[in-house]
This record gives sequence, C-alpha cells and structure tokens, in this order.
Amino acid sequence: MTSEPVVPGDLRDLLERPLFGHLATVRPDGTPQVNPMWFRWDGERLYFTHTTARRKYRNLQANPNVAMSLVDPENPYRYLELRGAVERIEPDPTGAFYVQLAERYGRPMDAPPPDAPDRVIIVVRPTRATRH
Amino acid sequence: MTSEPVVPGDLRDLLERPLFGHLATVRPDGTPQVNPMWFRWDGERLYFTHTTARRKYRNLQANPNVAMSLVDPENPYRYLELRGAVERIEPDPTGAFYVQLAERYGRPMDAPPPDAPDRVIIVVRPTRATRH
Repeated sequence: MTSEPVVPGDLRDLLERPLFGHLATVRPDGTPQVNPMWFRWDGERLYFTHTTARRKYRNLQANPNVAMSLVDPENPYRYLELRGAVERIEPDPTGAFYVQLAERYGRPMDAPPPDAPDRVIIVVRPTRATRH
Repeated sequence: MTSEPVVPGDLRDLLERPLFGHLATVRPDGTPQVNPMWFRWDGERLYFTHTTARRKYRNLQANPNVAMSLVDPENPYRYLELRGAVERIEPDPTGAFYVQLAERYGRPMDAPPPDAPDRVIIVVRPTRATRH
C-alpha cells in the first residue's frame, strides 16, 4: 500500500530551502499562538529546535496539534500550509541539532547555545497540506 | 487614563508595510490553522478581507481568538506576534475593501472580485504583542 504524498511536488522546494515556517499551536486556554521557526524537513517529518522552558513546549504537552504556514519570499502567492501533530519530542542536551539548524539558516556557531541542557527536538508528521 | 501601546514603536513599520501576516485561528476540533493574509493596520486594529464561504470564517464564529506572526523580509530576526480577538465582522458586499487591499499589495484591480457578495471585513483588536 502506498499513500499519496502530503506535500505537492511543485511546492517541495519551500520545505527544502531555509525559509521561516510560521508555526501555530494552541494554548491551554484555547487561544492560538504563532511564531516564525527554523525547521528541517526529511521528506516526511518536520524537525524544530525548542526548549522545555518556553510556552510553546507547554502548549504542545496539552495539545500536540500544529499547523505551519510558509510562503516563497520571491513569490508570496506560492504558499503552503501543513497540518499535523507532534509525533515525538527528543532531548538535544548537547544542542547539536540547534547548531545544525543554525548552520542551515546561515548562522554558523562556534559553540552550542547556553541553554543546550533544556534543548529538545520537536518532530511533527504533517498529515494535511493546503495550498493557495 | 492612557494604556501602553500594544505594538513596540520600533516594530510598527512591519504593520505599515504591505507584508504578509500569518494568521492563526483554531478549528472547532481544537486544532490550529494558519495562513498568509493581506491586512491593513490603523494603529489599533487589523483589518482582513475574507469570505463567509471559507473555513477561517467558520473557525472564527466558534472561537474569535487569533494570533498573527510577521517577519521583516530584509531581516527575519525582526519579528512580531500579535494576539487578540475579532472585534466585529462587517459585510463588504461590493468588495471595496478587497480592492483597497489589492492595491496596497501591488495588485490593483479593474473590477471587484467575483465573490464580492460573500466578502466580509474581519476586524481584530490586538491585546498582546510578543517580539523575538
């Protein structure tokens, strides 16, 4: 059995380029939150760096559903929304994934971030895509 | 009595420029949705064009809370998130506000959009701002 790819082929470049994804989560009080985030895409899953000390982490503990909106900066009418849920959250205690993302986004670092002990990798599997 | 301005003065240009705002809403099933949107800012309120036929309109009927994320395309680390709720939804049956926004975003139109009868103006008053 094969499944339809979630991401339309002609928009896949938006996930491969180091663009900012606007990641929406829901707070425990039912109101939305949305922030620009670095991410990596492996063809099936999105990976975000985050820390256990921040609000979005607490939001995701209570409600694992997310949505991410992306636009092509050279043509804002090429647009993709992915929706899905957190599949798992992995510790990143050395900050290695943060350093990897920083390099992808043109901000190479000499040392891990000072909050490395609290760093986690949020892994999301998108199940729905919407385009313009 | 005066209140603190919600938007930090040094980021106000992000609202004055015709940038895309990534608007997050919550679906009736409690999952988030986020899409790039045109908007206008009058110093206190955000105005979006939308139609009664679309999902976001139904989301807002059930849960009027929204969040919007904006980045400066010339410096993605200048970033603003606004949160608040829909204050009112006004009919725009001639599509006049849509035409006004299209002009602001460099897409001037000769005629109103075909879905003008369903067009509405979503008016949001932000009550919280978060920056990077």
